[in-house]
Amino acid sequence: MTLIAPFWPPWVAIAMADLSLVLVHYPVLDKNGLIVTSALTNMDIHDIARSARTYGVRRFFVATPVKALRRLAAKIIEHWESGYGSTYNATRKEALSLVRLEHDLDSTILNLEHETGARPRVIATSARGGPARLDFATLRGQIETSREPYLIVLGTGWGLAPEVTERADAVVEPIRGPTDYNHLSVRSAAAIILDRLCGAR
Amino acid sequence: MTLIAPFWPPWVAIAMADLSLVLVHYPVLDKNGLIVTSALTNMDIHDIARSARTYGVRRFFVATPVKALRRLAAKIIEHWESGYGSTYNATRKEALSLVRLEHDLDSTILNLEHETGARPRVIATSARGGPARLDFATLRGQIETSREPYLIVLGTGWGLAPEVTERADAVVEPIRGPTDYNHLSVRSAAAIILDRLCGAR
Repeated sequence: MTLIAPFWPPWVAIAMADLSLVLVHYPVLDKNGLIVTSALTNMDIHDIARSARTYGVRRFFVATPVKALRRLAAKIIEHWESGYGSTYNATRKEALSLVRLEHDLDSTILNLEHETGARPRVIATSARGGPARLDFATLRGQIETSREPYLIVLGTGWGLAPEVTERADAVVEPIRGPTDYNHLSVRSAAAIILDRLCGAR
Repeated sequence: MTLIAPFWPPWVAIAMADLSLVLVHYPVLDKNGLIVTSALTNMDIHDIARSARTYGVRRFFVATPVKALRRLAAKIIEHWESGYGSTYNATRKEALSLVRLEHDLDSTILNLEHETGARPRVIATSARGGPARLDFATLRGQIETSREPYLIVLGTGWGLAPEVTERADAVVEPIRGPTDYNHLSVRSAAAIILDRLCGAR
């Protein structure tokens, strides 16, 4: 499949590989392995939205159960979408238009299903290995040929709680370089995952 | 070449593909195409250091002519390397140990030459296309088979000034997804570049 359709508007190309992301802030692990709600990081939203826009992602959901943080995020996004930021930097506006603020993974899945008309395949990510991890090449092939929407689940803090990975349809393999260090920022991990799944080859 | 050498200490694997990064804060472009000195962003140092550590990079140079900003960066790094942060998060310490603060590209090249004993091949990056761009697969092959150290030059702001790209030994092709949007953060771009050059395949 060719993702680049030179004479088609971009949303046609996007519809071909129907990929969305969700950045989950609860339930995630802290450095001691306890389940916590992580704070929302402004830079996560900006960086991942820009990567999402680059790689033709349908939606970038930011899920936190903390209402005050969702409202804060909404305010920041509004600044770039319709406030002063929208004229200062139009490319930021374009990226942030993909963002949707959600309560949790359940509300994200429901809203994505509502938008696409089909229940998404939910793919969890993890920096840790484990049994039955899906490799990136296989997942890329599935996304490119499937008619179903796909939702990639990213965890903040020290990663997704087991209850999230356990209910996913699949867990993708960890990102590996030539070392055994596996502490990428979620911003970097999101960029690499999108490049592996949708990058021009 | 196999970059993973299970029973060797990590610096042996690192020595095989001798890759370093430099994040340049002057001369770079602003959004109007003027040459400026950009401010140092704390998150750039952390994110790119973590990516560098993941992908077995030798050094991550942070180059700014502003002495006060180098001192500020040194202080922040010290917090994680030997201050409270070093016990709070040892993985951060490990990543930041790759960082060297430099004045500019010239001092970076000199110091890298001093450390490796050979003048590095300087590879500029750009989000814009142009004539004679080196593709990632070719560059990866060169780095893997060459005995020379390589230095990848990343620009902050709206990218490296032409005087930097013009003096580089080569300019690598822009990162492309299936859209024509080319406004990744430098943190995301660095992660993707390292994955394309050194990621496990």
